[in-house]
Amino acid sequence: MNRVKIGYAQFCPEFGNRVANLAKVQKMVKDGGNADLLVFAELGVSGYDFRDREELISLAEPFDGGPTSLALIELAEEYSISLIIGYPEVSGEKVYNSCMLVTPDGKKYNYRKTHLFSRETLIFDAGDAPPPVISTPAGKIGLMICFDWVYPEIARLLTLAGAQIIAHPSNLVLQFCQKAMFARSVENGVFTITANRIGTEDRAGRSLTFTGASQVLDPKGNILAQAPDDEEHLAIIEVDLSRADDKFLTEHNHLLEGRRVDLYSGLVNL
Amino acid sequence: MNRVKIGYAQFCPEFGNRVANLAKVQKMVKDGGNADLLVFAELGVSGYDFRDREELISLAEPFDGGPTSLALIELAEEYSISLIIGYPEVSGEKVYNSCMLVTPDGKKYNYRKTHLFSRETLIFDAGDAPPPVISTPAGKIGLMICFDWVYPEIARLLTLAGAQIIAHPSNLVLQFCQKAMFARSVENGVFTITANRIGTEDRAGRSLTFTGASQVLDPKGNILAQAPDDEEHLAIIEVDLSRADDKFLTEHNHLLEGRRVDLYSGLVNL
Repeated sequence: MNRVKIGYAQFCPEFGNRVANLAKVQKMVKDGGNADLLVFAELGVSGYDFRDREELISLAEPFDGGPTSLALIELAEEYSISLIIGYPEVSGEKVYNSCMLVTPDGKKYNYRKTHLFSRETLIFDAGDAPPPVISTPAGKIGLMICFDWVYPEIARLLTLAGAQIIAHPSNLVLQFCQKAMFARSVENGVFTITANRIGTEDRAGRSLTFTGASQVLDPKGNILAQAPDDEEHLAIIEVDLSRADDKFLTEHNHLLEGRRVDLYSGLVNL
Repeated sequence: MNRVKIGYAQFCPEFGNRVANLAKVQKMVKDGGNADLLVFAELGVSGYDFRDREELISLAEPFDGGPTSLALIELAEEYSISLIIGYPEVSGEKVYNSCMLVTPDGKKYNYRKTHLFSRETLIFDAGDAPPPVISTPAGKIGLMICFDWVYPEIARLLTLAGAQIIAHPSNLVLQFCQKAMFARSVENGVFTITANRIGTEDRAGRSLTFTGASQVLDPKGNILAQAPDDEEHLAIIEVDLSRADDKFLTEHNHLLEGRRVDLYSGLVNL
């Protein structure tokens, strides 16, 4: 069974209002009907532009037993769906920009963003583990968050670890990413789902407007679905996962076996 | 002096007619006036679709002292320009899909394509060295050839080695590459010049039509010049190379220093 229904749910999180945001997630999952996978935005549970680390900590929660994981597990079981959403994670003295994946059988997985963007570097701790790939009923899903897209190393690591779909919760304020994900899909031969948010946050004298345009791309870079820049949008697309397993670009070119690892040592020199 | 004039010269090489193709190169260099760098297509000296290795060898030439390097050195000195073109290189028992760079002071440099495409794998030997970066009066130039574009590892290696401009002689039969070079420019913060060819080759029962659309992109992925799909075209653009040296995407994000090399070991596991 290689056909699965995957998509994104684009909305405007309300800053600091977890209850309202999880209610919105619940509603969009319900609206999504029988999807196998829905991806929500980075920090979709909390909003984005924390004044400082103190405010961030006050809105953060643990991965194990926190309100978001409890709510999502319930939802995932009820709707028999895999769900991904970003949230601020507290763990001891650390606070991460994380996303969690929950599966219909109630299991949960976590990824802590490794490449922090701009002021995130001032208030978050960066993750210290390579991005994970998780086997779910919706396929093998690799996780990366927003600015990770700039680093082709991350999508490549996910692909080498077997990802068929790269799920990519984001809070994008420009649209470079949406355009560049064409290359990420094609160079790796995977489906990509970039789930962005919409709306404006006016906080601490700053104004940030997010650019929407969430999208699902196939392994050839075709846009299967794309959201408007500034409206709520839910897209669910049926795809054949075996397309992500076929890495032959020509009969003589296997995308991954064609890598010249013998020449790549410069990529990991400090 | 960070301002240089760089570009591509797109034309239709005549299969197997080195004399005619080098005459065309000479004419386009002359037309190019006072450019500092001009990039021509992959195998621009010879044409592309060799029937077999035997025919390929009959049209190949050495890097040292071959007719193309002799002609290009003369041209580069006369017009005070750096020139790049692809040619079939013979070296002992090996035959490579190579490109050479010659500089106004008569020096020459070579790159042997490392990621061969489709039937090239049957007749060429693959290069065994990482792609080079060469300091020229037109800037620090990194070399890659056509299908190398699919592998983000190559453009990254060039960038890590200091390239300000990635020069990319190509023989593209699709237009995935032209679209993906946006990501290559942005993820590396470099200028890219993809010099494609035009025209159709009907050989050995195959017909290949090349897609033109040669282009120059800046470090933000803006298209500074782009050729038609099917017409000869010469573009020369004045650029400020210091834009490729500024790797700060935000005051907190240095594109290269932000790489998490500690997490990338999976990229070089065999």
